[in-house]
Parts: sequence; C-alpha cells; structure tokens
Amino acid sequence: MNVSILGGSGYVGGELLRLLLSHPRIDVGQVTSESNAGKLVTTVHPNLRKRAHLRFCSITEIKPCDLLFAALPHGSFMKRFPDLRQVAPRVIDLSADFRLRSADAYPEWYGHPHACPDLLQEFVYGLVELRRDAVRRNPYVSGAGCLATAAILGLMPLFARNVVQDFAVTIEAKVGSSAAGNTPSLATHHPERSGAVRSFQATGHRHTAEIAQELGLHGEPKIHFSATAIELVRGVLTTSHLLLREPLDERDIWKIYRETYGDEPFIRIVKDAKGVFRYPEPKLLAGTNFCDIGFERDIRTNRLVVLAALDNLMKGAAGNGVQAMNVMAGWDECLGLEFAGLHPI
Amino acid sequence: MNVSILGGSGYVGGELLRLLLSHPRIDVGQVTSESNAGKLVTTVHPNLRKRAHLRFCSITEIKPCDLLFAALPHGSFMKRFPDLRQVAPRVIDLSADFRLRSADAYPEWYGHPHACPDLLQEFVYGLVELRRDAVRRNPYVSGAGCLATAAILGLMPLFARNVVQDFAVTIEAKVGSSAAGNTPSLATHHPERSGAVRSFQATGHRHTAEIAQELGLHGEPKIHFSATAIELVRGVLTTSHLLLREPLDERDIWKIYRETYGDEPFIRIVKDAKGVFRYPEPKLLAGTNFCDIGFERDIRTNRLVVLAALDNLMKGAAGNGVQAMNVMAGWDECLGLEFAGLHPI
Amino acid sequence: MNVSILGGSGYVGGELLRLLLSHPRIDVGQVTSESNAGKLVTTVHPNLRKRAHLRFCSITEIKPCDLLFAALPHGSFMKRFPDLRQVAPRVIDLSADFRLRSADAYPEWYGHPHACPDLLQEFVYGLVELRRDAVRRNPYVSGAGCLATAAILGLMPLFARNVVQDFAVTIEAKVGSSAAGNTPSLATHHPERSGAVRSFQATGHRHTAEIAQELGLHGEPKIHFSATAIELVRGVLTTSHLLLREPLDERDIWKIYRETYGDEPFIRIVKDAKGVFRYPEPKLLAGTNFCDIGFERDIRTNRLVVLAALDNLMKGAAGNGVQAMNVMAGWDECLGLEFAGLHPI
Amino acid sequence: MNVSILGGSGYVGGELLRLLLSHPRIDVGQVTSESNAGKLVTTVHPNLRKRAHLRFCSITEIKPCDLLFAALPHGSFMKRFPDLRQVAPRVIDLSADFRLRSADAYPEWYGHPHACPDLLQEFVYGLVELRRDAVRRNPYVSGAGCLATAAILGLMPLFARNVVQDFAVTIEAKVGSSAAGNTPSLATHHPERSGAVRSFQATGHRHTAEIAQELGLHGEPKIHFSATAIELVRGVLTTSHLLLREPLDERDIWKIYRETYGDEPFIRIVKDAKGVFRYPEPKLLAGTNFCDIGFERDIRTNRLVVLAALDNLMKGAAGNGVQAMNVMAGWDECLGLEFAGLHPI
Repeated sequence: MNVSILGGSGYVGGELLRLLLSHPRIDVGQVTSESNAGKLVTTVHPNLRKRAHLRFCSITEIKPCDLLFAALPHGSFMKRFPDLRQVAPRVIDLSADFRLRSADAYPEWYGHPHACPDLLQEFVYGLVELRRDAVRRNPYVSGAGCLATAAILGLMPLFARNVVQDFAVTIEAKVGSSAAGNTPSLATHHPERSGAVRSFQATGHRHTAEIAQELGLHGEPKIHFSATAIELVRGVLTTSHLLLREPLDERDIWKIYRETYGDEPFIRIVKDAKGVFRYPEPKLLAGTNFCDIGFERDIRTNRLVVLAALDNLMKGAAGNGVQAMNVMAGWDECLGLEFAGLHPI
Repeated sequence: MNVSILGGSGYVGGELLRLLLSHPRIDVGQVTSESNAGKLVTTVHPNLRKRAHLRFCSITEIKPCDLLFAALPHGSFMKRFPDLRQVAPRVIDLSADFRLRSADAYPEWYGHPHACPDLLQEFVYGLVELRRDAVRRNPYVSGAGCLATAAILGLMPLFARNVVQDFAVTIEAKVGSSAAGNTPSLATHHPERSGAVRSFQATGHRHTAEIAQELGLHGEPKIHFSATAIELVRGVLTTSHLLLREPLDERDIWKIYRETYGDEPFIRIVKDAKGVFRYPEPKLLAGTNFCDIGFERDIRTNRLVVLAALDNLMKGAAGNGVQAMNVMAGWDECLGLEFAGLHPI
Repeated sequence: MNVSILGGSGYVGGELLRLLLSHPRIDVGQVTSESNAGKLVTTVHPNLRKRAHLRFCSITEIKPCDLLFAALPHGSFMKRFPDLRQVAPRVIDLSADFRLRSADAYPEWYGHPHACPDLLQEFVYGLVELRRDAVRRNPYVSGAGCLATAAILGLMPLFARNVVQDFAVTIEAKVGSSAAGNTPSLATHHPERSGAVRSFQATGHRHTAEIAQELGLHGEPKIHFSATAIELVRGVLTTSHLLLREPLDERDIWKIYRETYGDEPFIRIVKDAKGVFRYPEPKLLAGTNFCDIGFERDIRTNRLVVLAALDNLMKGAAGNGVQAMNVMAGWDECLGLEFAGLHPI
Repeated sequence: MNVSILGGSGYVGGELLRLLLSHPRIDVGQVTSESNAGKLVTTVHPNLRKRAHLRFCSITEIKPCDLLFAALPHGSFMKRFPDLRQVAPRVIDLSADFRLRSADAYPEWYGHPHACPDLLQEFVYGLVELRRDAVRRNPYVSGAGCLATAAILGLMPLFARNVVQDFAVTIEAKVGSSAAGNTPSLATHHPERSGAVRSFQATGHRHTAEIAQELGLHGEPKIHFSATAIELVRGVLTTSHLLLREPLDERDIWKIYRETYGDEPFIRIVKDAKGVFRYPEPKLLAGTNFCDIGFERDIRTNRLVVLAALDNLMKGAAGNGVQAMNVMAGWDECLGLEFAGLHPI
C-alpha cells in the first residue's frame, strides 16, 4: 500500500514516518513540508539516518496514493480536505480538525468557525478500541487528542456500565514537552521548561470537548479537566477521580476492565498489589502503542481513581493512526507497532 | 538563642541546619545522628563545606538548650518527647507525630497506636498563617506535611468563607523525590525514578488526615486526595478542584485571597493574564519559604482550580519550622528566610 | 535456535530478553535469576508485559540449549564457565570476565586473580566491527565495556592508519545511570543522582585496559581516560582528544572513516556543517544498536576531537551481543536490531 | 552605593539584580531593557516577586550612579563604553568585550574587529583570586567567561608552579543550558535539549582565548578545549587533563592548592577519599559563588585530572561581578554572596 504524509516535519509527522518506514506492508510515497521542501527528511528527523533517504516535497507536488496521512497544524487540514479527497481514497487526519461531531462545538472550543462543517460527519473519531467496525468501514478517520485518548480509554468502561455518580469526573492530565510541538518559545526554552510543573491549562482545555463527546454517548457527562506540563519529553498520565454510584469491590472493577479490554492488543491493565511498577508509568511506554490503565479505590469515600498512561506521539497520535490504518486495510492490527518499550529509560 | 537539632542527617535536618547556621539570632548547639555520630556534618551535607565545622553527636549526649528542633523519622519523636521536655523549654517537631489532634485519627492513618495520645493536645499544628497567635504562645509546635501545607494554604480562604460546594475538593499533589527522604530504594534508584510520573499514593495518603483536620474547622470536608511523584528533586504543586456554591467572578476570588493573605510575608498570589510565569511554579521556589498560590475559574461548570506551590524542604518542612521559631521568639518572621529563589533553575 | 540467559534480572539481562523475544529466529529458553526464581520476568522488566509470560528459574535448573548468554555480575561467570561449557556449544558472556587477553592485565585492573586464566584465550573480544571473522568462527565470545566500545570504535580507524601522534589520546566519557546497574545506593538515589555531573572515575577506570588492548594492536598506546556520570539514564558519549602526526584536512578524515565503516550497518558517521544534530547525540540512540561517530579538527593546534555515542545497554552490551550472535549463526547481522530510535526523546 | 544595571532582562542581569537587591550596602538604581522598558522586572524575573518593585527603563534614560554593571550582549557594550564612562566612575562589564588584553586576539576569536581596541588595556580581567589588587585599584573591570573561570581557577596554581609538562592541557567543559542565554531556539527547545549530551563546540570555543591569556602569564600554554552541553540548567564542570613534569604525590598537590587558595573565601578544595560527594559537583553550587576544585592522579601515566565546578550565572558571571564590586569598594568580599547552596537539589 502506498502511503503519503502531509506535514511530515513535525514531531507527529516524524513519528508516522518512522513507523511507516518499518511497516511490512507499506511503501512510503511522499512526505511534505513547506519549510523543508527539498531537504532530506533526516535533517529534521535525525533518528532516521541510514533508514530513510527521502526528501521532503511541497504539498503542491502531492500525487495520488492509496492512503494519505495528514499531520498538519490544527486548522490547516480542514481547508484542504475537499481537494485532498481526490488524492487518496482513504485519509487519516491526526489534527484536531475532524474530531468533534458537532458543528457547534468546534467554534466554541477552537475560537473560529469550521471550514467545512458539512463534512464533519464523514469522519470517524478514530479510537479503534471504541469503534473498530466504523474505522474499518469508513474512508475518513480522525485521530484523537493525546490527553483525550488516555482519559477516554481509562474512563469509558465505567461510563458505559453506568457506575459513575452523576457522570462526573475530575481529570488531571500530566504531559511531556513533545506534545506542544517543535516550535521553540520561551515556554519551551530549556532553562524555563526543565523541571517545570506548569499548569498550562487549568481550565478550558480543548480536549475536554472530545472527552465529553465520547463519554457523552452514555449520559450527560460533567468533565472537570486540567492539564499540567511536567519534566518529560514523551508521555501522558491522566489521573481521573470519580465517585461510584454504589460501592464496588476490587474484583468488580477488574471485571469491568477485563470484559472491555481483555482482547485489546494495546491496552494493559496495570495494577499490582505492590512494587515500583504497580501502576501505569508513561516513561515505560515511550515508542510503544500501549495505553496502560490502572485504578485504586478510596474505600473511605467511595472514590475511584483511574490512571491511564501512553506516549503522546504514539497511542496519542501516530501510533494510533497506524493502528487505525491497519484496521482499515484489514491487516493484523499490530503490524509495525510491535516495539515493547525500554526499561530502564 | 541556642538551638539543637535532633535527627540532623536527613534532608529536613540538613535544611534546618543550613537555615540556622545563617540565622542572625541563633547559635547552633548540637546536631544528632546515631549513624553518623562523630562525623563532620559536611560529610552528609556537602553544601555546608566552609560554613559548618560541627560534628554529629548521639541523641544520648544531648544537652539543655533554648529550643529543640526534632527532625526524626515518623514514630520516633513521640517516644522520646516526655523525656525531651527536660532538655528544652520549647520544641518544634517536624515529624508527623503531633500533627493530628485526635487520638483516634492517628492510628487510623498511621496504622499503629500513638505513644502518648494524652500529649497530642499540647502541640499546635504549626502553620503560622493559620494560627500565628497560638504558635506564639505555645511551647510545643508541630510542623505540617509538605503536601498538606500546600493544599491547606491554597484552600483555607475558600473554606473559611464557605464558598465551596459540599465542602468537597479533589486534590492532586505533584511532588519531587526529596520528599521521600534520603534512604535509597528501587523506587528512588535513578534509572527508575528519573522521568517518572508515578501515582505512588492514589488514595489513602496520610496527609489527607491533616487536610481534613484543618479545613474541617469550617465544616465537614470531603477530601479526595492523590499524590504523584514526578521528575523533580524539590517541589510540590497541588492542583485542587472544587465547585463553587455560587458563581464568583475573578475579582471576588482575588478579594478573598487578598484579604486573607495580603499581609503574609511568605504567601504570594501568582496569577497573571498570560506569560510563562502566570501560575505558581515550584521550581522557582527551591530554597525559599514561599507558598505561591494561583487559581483559575471554569466558567462552563462553576469549577475553581486552585494551584499552590512550595519547596517541600522549606515551607513544607524546615523553612516553616524556622518561621514558627521566629514567631515563638517574637522576632521578625522572615529572619533567616530571605532567600528569593533562583531563576532560571 | 534455542537461547537461554544466565542472569536475566539486571538491566543488561532485561535488554537481552527484550531483544531475543522479538528476534525472528530465536526461541527463548530459560532466564535465570537467583533472587527472583519463580517470579514472572515482568515483575522485574515491566516493559515486557503482554510480551513475555516466562518465569525466572535458578541457574541450578539450567538445561542444554543452542547458545547461552551470560549477563552475570563481573567475577561470577568465570567461576562457572568450565561447567557451563557442557550446557551450550556457544556462549556469549557480557560480563568483564573474558574481555582481557592477558592473564596479567586482569588482576592489575580488577584487583583479584582470574578464576581460569588458561581459558582467557578461548574468548574473542566481541566487537564485531573489529573482528567479524573471529566472532563467526569462535564458540566463545565476550562482550565489550560500554565506554570502551564507544572509545574504540571512534578511535580504531585512526590508530590503524597510524595518524595519531605518539599513539596518545585523552578520552572523556560521559555516561548515564543505567550503566551502574540496578542496585540502589546513595550514589544512585534520585535526589543525589539527578542533575549530577559526577567524575566518578577520573583515573583508573577498568575500561582503560580494554581500550589499550584493542588500540594497542597498532602500537603502544597512551590512554588517558576519565568517566563522568551525567543526567541521563541510557547513553554514552566519549569525547576523545588527540594530536595528528601530520595535518589532515577534513576530507582525509572522512575518507579514513568511510573506508573503515562504509559498509557497517550499525555505524554512522554523523558530521554536518551545522544544525542541532550535527554531531553524535546519545539520547537519539536509546534502544538502538547504532554507534554514531563524529569528529572536529582544531586547526590551530592540529588536534582532532572524536565523538562517539551509543546506548550502553544496546551497542554497549545486549545489542552488541545479539549482533555477535547473528554473526555466529550466519544470519543477517541486523536481525532483531532494526529499531531506529526515537526523536524527540 | 547606588548601582545600576545595563541589560537587566537576561539571565545574568536577573542574577545580578537578585544579588544586588539583597546586598546590604547597595541601592539598586536603574535596570535597563530595551524590549521590556516600562514593565515590572518581575515579569521577566518571577523569582523577585515581593522582593522587587522596579520597572525596566531604556538605556537612553540612564542616570549617573556610583557603579554601573553591564550585562549586555557580546559586542554591544564596547560600542557604548566611551559614552558610559560619563555615567559612572566605576564600571563592571560582564560581557566578553573587554576580557582579552590583545587587540589582535579579539578579532581572531570573535570574528569582527573590536570597537575600541585602544581601551582594552583599561580593563582588568576580573578574576579576583588572580589579581585582587588590580581589581581594587582599577575603575574598569571585566568579568570572565564561565567556562574559562572554572578552567583557570582549577589550573592556575599548577601553571604558576610550573609543574605542567609542556604547559599543555586538555580541558573538557560540561555546561548547563542557562549559559546560552534566554533566547529560544531549536537547540534549546526542551524536547531537543532535554537529556542532551551535545558537543556544541568541540574546537574553537572563544573561552580558549581567555584561558590561554591567563595561563599564559606563566609560559606559552597549549590549550585543548572542548565544550559539551548536558542536562542541567545551572552549572559547569571542567575536567582538565595534564601530564606532570615530574611525579608529585598527593600531598604535594594538596600543598600547591592550599598555598594558593587557603585563604580564598569562595574556593574550596573538594577531595575526599570516598563517598558520593568526594569531588566537585556543580549542582550543589547553584546560587552560590563557590568554585569547588578537586583533583586525581593517574599514577600509571603521571597524568593529573583537575576538576572545577561552579554556577555559571554566579561565580561564572554575576556572583563574580559582585565579588569584584565588593573588592573595588573595600568591603568584605563576601557581602551579598553568603548563600551556601542547597542539598539535595
């Protein structure tokens, strides 16, 4: 299958390229970057030295291919999508442009109107674990936000079983610096960003809309979401706090997660009684497509704390995109995503 | 004033020693350490080279002094306190032994009975900002937990004004590695601890009891507390989420904090409209006695997010102890605590 | 091919296990650990969850296999080797026990006599790039020290061409914390090790002996070696300074490296005129088997600075071991070692 | 004494401001910043909240004062110096403009002619430990490069005693990110800079010229200098390798250092037989004005390794400037520089 990448010079684009280059069923066609057109991809993605000999081209040079990945900046892909439909029969967009189903929600959270609200319904919100069949059948798939992915995968089983009091949850997301992209600024300048514990979006984070949309399939959710940047390059941990409608013992909760995710290749329930590795730990997931999920009950208050970890560039972006592609193509879902992760790291 | 330190080889003891050595009104008497008795304090606290020429002694050699600081491991001081009353007329204990007022709460949270429950009432919970007068008048003062200090200082003004719905709050504490002390283990082994985002105590953290005790002065609080270890040596950030009884605009909240803390030398309200430094950032507080507090409203849901940052060894332990000592002695509260903090760091 | 691992609970053993589990030609037989016998390997190597269902066994239970990897502590394997020859026809030892050819050098650098000096000659020093044929033909192969590997691969082409003045070189090695193994101590306790720039072995480092042995094939070398621990988990950068016998221009040096390493799959000459990635950078190599080599001339003094980077657990240990195994078995040298590395990380 | 700061928005300017604000003999007059004129200094230096209420002004508004600190970008101060002489009778310049005595050396290393080569001789190279008397008597003092300061202070006693073979030394400097200033770029973008071991200047570093100038007072030195950026915000460690003319035992070397630095308030010889803290460690020096110096002999080769650590913004810039000011004013050299440093950090 011939696959091209729009917007291949960012961190998500680079990760996609890395994955596709070692994918056994894929030929990488073109990789676009306006600012780097003509340069070797390895000038921007030095990890691909000896592995890639491609050069970036301009998006204006894009040729027909079997599947097109878009990793353009938010707001950019939606303007081009109507034209790009001619380029490839299948498109996976990793930007935020087609994640929300509601034409009203988009401007509320993104602050400007959507360029083609009529086309929103053509995309599937591509969390494979939530809607594998729709992803398989649909030509247009959207990625999901990295923080939203962790939060949704951690909470969905509980919302689907209706065990959450008032459908209310408080989500604290911790995230590494790569999630903010590759554009330098004072906020990402090493002396300022190193060792930071920075509540960069205490309220109003856009991923709240995705989480509400997906968990809202099971009732009207109350999502209280905050995001904190911490010292880490890759990685997300969401810590979600909710009250249970009725007390559940540990076995009940294990059962809910096992029934939902028992056969999922990329979800692991990580919960040991003791030990350093008893809960999900994002650093162990760098480069992998896993989402590790754990939980702990507070028996004094009937609170449940749900932990979900992933690599924001993998399960939170490019890896999930490749997983969706595998599903769309009818291949083994794990193709090209076998990396186990490093320990220690 | 002649001051001695019990338990001077740990991180809190070392920080105390550093502060007392440069305090203009203090002569440091003895510093005890059973495992290091006879050694120079600089073998353990290398930052004090050229500043300290003391040697550790055993606690059995302790002599009378004007004020005694105790920085012994939890559970150790309470066994010795009845005897130590003879050593000094004033004692500041930085362990957890005398933080809880209720004889019932101690075994519930610490898992073993208190050695002298009758004496619990003799200690003041020494957050100066909450009860300056009691600290001034009382010979026995207890320190406060580092995470509890941040949470309480951030939330107390809101609980005192009764603006919190159901007195309920979800607190997510992020904390650096020094808070776990100086004993090596696999959990603190650098290859494992570096870059960690480790939910080491999702529920059941002992500081919950202190927070409930202090905020409970204003109603029956529902405290949902979790603690996550992150990549950082010194520092705490608590992110507290609560719903407001009634909508308050930003000015109302500013007013509450200003009225409560306007004259406090070690509390800063950090809330700018924009910029990298718009919220509290613990790394800027390393070595200082500040607790920086910020907040953000979620107008969609009437949620308020309260951020509080401090250095766990300073305002979260030794610095707060020196502040309490200054109050007890009737001195300027800031003596020996003038360090402004480093930027960048 | 059936392969077992002696000493599978350490960092090198875990890395070996990770590589062998995803190697297309290998069945992993047994993995020993005395302290963890009976436990799942994932209790110690959490990255292998969902990938490994093996349990550790005791070395006393070891069964015959086709090839045996040893990742035991230094000094332990040499006592067992005479017996272990019965277990497998081929052995790759990743400890330091059989790296030195000279029976005299071992006690000089390791401080105690060798357990079986007569057998030293049976092992090949297994840097494949230096002696591929010997590795192919020999049943017993030794790994190489991680710092030594970087230094030797960087310098060997220059020593072999006899362009180094007096055969003298000053080597400064920077290394991450995983190289010291998984046993906690004060030196590796996170608050102490984090942000460290610790000259842990300014002189007398044991890898000096390996470097001298290998570079000494081309003349009597003068090796001035120092090692500094820095903030990093995985990774080594050696910075080697030498004076050239005669001035060489940049093209001459490029030519030397290209002729030596042009066909090597795991060596990349990294030297761009500008850009952030113009020299070798160890963090980009985490999880890969690459050794990246760069250089810069000081035209004022005729000095050449040679930079060599690698992942100490991969090319510096387990990865190199797998590469050697591939050579011994006559397979594609890259099998199981295809991971390109992450960027950013 | 009334002191103003030219260029107060950078990291060195901010550090100066922090030090001067708590200096008992100084009134801070004006602090200039062209890009921040009119803003509170705390918008750029958030650590000074509650400590500084000043606003930046433009350099065009500068008024006469007793002493002027300049922390302008390299190349900027020298153009203004002839005019600025009217503003203050004493000037301390922390840029590189007046560090080199030779009018020829400047363009060789800086790539452009000096704006006022005739005035070079009016400045003293302000390492107080090298020329305290000249600093005391001279109205114009230049700072020293941060890497040069560490290297020179570590090596000077050996060069002065003529114990170094051929006056030759290989210096490997490791340095944190704050030394590169506060301007964001891809090289300092957190995902790229975090965990880096980047040989940013393997040869040709400008500090080489300063080191040669200062060590050259004792013979024609051969300086082989390289600089590597590592994961650290503040801090420098130079590792210097040299051969001794004749073997010296440890006591001889101790004696050389003690005789040279025994009375120096900011130099500590750090060399223990064992322990984690046996050598200089830059992280312990953050915020202090110490330069810690250690050494180790290689008895096999007669090599001596000299380690020197400091905080690049303190002893490597602002702290050394304040020390020089204290000397110029005839005050206790330690005024305002008493901070002992933090442990752990």
